[in-house]
Amino acid sequence: MSLPALRLKANADRRLRAGHLWVYSNEIDVAATPLNAFQPGDQAVLETTSGKPLGIVAVSPNNLICARLLSRDLKHPLDKSLLVHRLKVALSLRDRLFDTPHYRLVYGDSDLLPGLVVDRFGDYVVAQIASPTMERHRDDILAALLQVLKPAGVLWKNDSSARDAEGLERYVDNAYGEVPDWVPLIENGVQFEAPVREGQKTGWFYDHRMNRARLAPYVAGKRVLDLFSYIGGWGVQAAAFGASEVFCVDASAFALDGVERNAALNGLAEKMTCVEGDVFEALKELKNAEERFDVVIADPPAFIKRKKDLKNGEAAYRRLNEQAMRLLNKDGILVSASCSMHLPEDDLQNILLGSARHLDRNIQLLERGSQGPDHPVHPAIAETRYIKSMTVRLLPNA
Amino acid sequence: MSLPALRLKANADRRLRAGHLWVYSNEIDVAATPLNAFQPGDQAVLETTSGKPLGIVAVSPNNLICARLLSRDLKHPLDKSLLVHRLKVALSLRDRLFDTPHYRLVYGDSDLLPGLVVDRFGDYVVAQIASPTMERHRDDILAALLQVLKPAGVLWKNDSSARDAEGLERYVDNAYGEVPDWVPLIENGVQFEAPVREGQKTGWFYDHRMNRARLAPYVAGKRVLDLFSYIGGWGVQAAAFGASEVFCVDASAFALDGVERNAALNGLAEKMTCVEGDVFEALKELKNAEERFDVVIADPPAFIKRKKDLKNGEAAYRRLNEQAMRLLNKDGILVSASCSMHLPEDDLQNILLGSARHLDRNIQLLERGSQGPDHPVHPAIAETRYIKSMTVRLLPNA
Repeated sequence: MSLPALRLKANADRRLRAGHLWVYSNEIDVAATPLNAFQPGDQAVLETTSGKPLGIVAVSPNNLICARLLSRDLKHPLDKSLLVHRLKVALSLRDRLFDTPHYRLVYGDSDLLPGLVVDRFGDYVVAQIASPTMERHRDDILAALLQVLKPAGVLWKNDSSARDAEGLERYVDNAYGEVPDWVPLIENGVQFEAPVREGQKTGWFYDHRMNRARLAPYVAGKRVLDLFSYIGGWGVQAAAFGASEVFCVDASAFALDGVERNAALNGLAEKMTCVEGDVFEALKELKNAEERFDVVIADPPAFIKRKKDLKNGEAAYRRLNEQAMRLLNKDGILVSASCSMHLPEDDLQNILLGSARHLDRNIQLLERGSQGPDHPVHPAIAETRYIKSMTVRLLPNA
Repeated sequence: MSLPALRLKANADRRLRAGHLWVYSNEIDVAATPLNAFQPGDQAVLETTSGKPLGIVAVSPNNLICARLLSRDLKHPLDKSLLVHRLKVALSLRDRLFDTPHYRLVYGDSDLLPGLVVDRFGDYVVAQIASPTMERHRDDILAALLQVLKPAGVLWKNDSSARDAEGLERYVDNAYGEVPDWVPLIENGVQFEAPVREGQKTGWFYDHRMNRARLAPYVAGKRVLDLFSYIGGWGVQAAAFGASEVFCVDASAFALDGVERNAALNGLAEKMTCVEGDVFEALKELKNAEERFDVVIADPPAFIKRKKDLKNGEAAYRRLNEQAMRLLNKDGILVSASCSMHLPEDDLQNILLGSARHLDRNIQLLERGSQGPDHPVHPAIAETRYIKSMTVRLLPNA
């Protein structure tokens, strides 16, 4: 198989040699290798200005990130064989780390499979494609998944907004077998069912697994509030870890049905109270009703989706965390999370400090969590790290 | 009790209002309140340039950090009563978090007790004083510890270099009861004994507890190398979590006797091999002998003690991690730690990336750990955060 060349300008190879996988369109020597000669989804041999090959890339000619490195080995373009190899490498890590087959199996660039995400729910697999090269190799991906995992069902959950920029249509489609609407999983020993078709993203957020596990010593015997609860990932685990009472707040009735479903699965229904509505409104109402909690968990959707949202997004995180602190009992704990890739961890810490000082209170930062090891960070690609979770204690006034 | 005033220059109150606790000598209005009118260890009322009181500070007139905030409440100078209150607040967090009484009970500024560190080993307590104000209140500290903890013994381990800058002599002294040379503790379910008089710092490093707990899924059934092992905090836990074989390397024969002692306590002696010698030399010898490991743990002493050590220290971390990676088996794991407060976490990540690229290999960053919650971070004081632990996987070559 002979691939066309894609040539870099002088010095544009440095970042790639240092470990990065992305090529920006302004780094291409378009006189030598015009980008418009490529179709979305083509593969090419990326080469330096002097013609030295660096590896094989997936080309997205119309995207600012116009190419992503698939392999530094020229013998291995993306095909079923490379996919099987990469899936096995990804699987061997997860097999080592987890007792049950419930995890993110493939996390894009970090697993050297740019544009592909695969979440495993036991016998069922939910895959998301975000690049034209992966889309073109959809049948190879499916064949590789069947070979490596032997699943009962595979679902394409190809409905993310990232597809629009690549000119890919959005769809959700059964790829293999019969995937039920709700699929079972176990996280930190607690039973759940995730709505893989109707839910957010792949239906479940495995990324906060370790941060949820760390709830246990904080919530035992305590009254807990879970904001933006979705289907109860945090709240139901808090109840399972011994919380006396858990309030879940979400704007979606569908999500709260999921909370009830998951609480019932673990025999915890009588501990749960579901509050449907806008979280900021609910915070005000709970304050007015003089409700107080020992632990508040605030894990909102990304308030900062693009860089230009930074200022407004930070203000929203500030408002959320300050209002959450106002609901804490004496010696209360706030678990404050963010999945906004554009929000630096230090900014979240400063927001928490500022919120506490605004209330004339002191905090201790007890734990800093990140995404779990089934979402490995690519150390050269800052964008692969996105989850922040901070556990703070609001100190009693001296 | 009437305390003298210590007056700030204009705007020097801003950082303190935003939550910080430290005052630098160049921030004092020495015309109004000369620093040389204070004795080391005095307390004062810190006030703004317009005379508004901000709180009570401990004064170190000869130190660059000439004052530290003890309390924002003017009614509560440092005395036995405040110490009892602060110890109780500190204890209530640790009681909530830990099954057994083995933890850092007081972590200086973060527990609003600047200049005091207290580690608890069940019935025994090891305390470290680093400020003249705490030294002057040594009897109050002891009385407060006896009242709150009712320990069998208390040891002053007042031998840190931080004391020199404060003009305090170094000493180790039994303060109360009989403290044995080796005191028992439990960490992550594993038994240890720590040499509280002869060992490093307080004899034990509770700060890495959570990072050691996270070893479990990585080491089960594996061959492990523990560099700078000290008395086996990492290595013996790796063996207890199911490692097939553990090599501990340390330059100190005393430390390696501690490894053997702690391994024997848990019936793990036959899994351990102790290597006495310089770690960098040992790395070369292990390489030459073609020894390979599935997991290497590198938790060296601080290579960067002062800011001016940064460049040399980074080079040492680079050399250590690259040599450690060379000893890894296929699909090996490196746990790379640093306790250098001056080394930013991102620098350690870049060192790991650079080391891997130098070997033409790719890594995944699986976990990022920090100090445990018994070493809370003060969110306004960057210096209170110092522990880094990164778990990386060296990917098989494609």
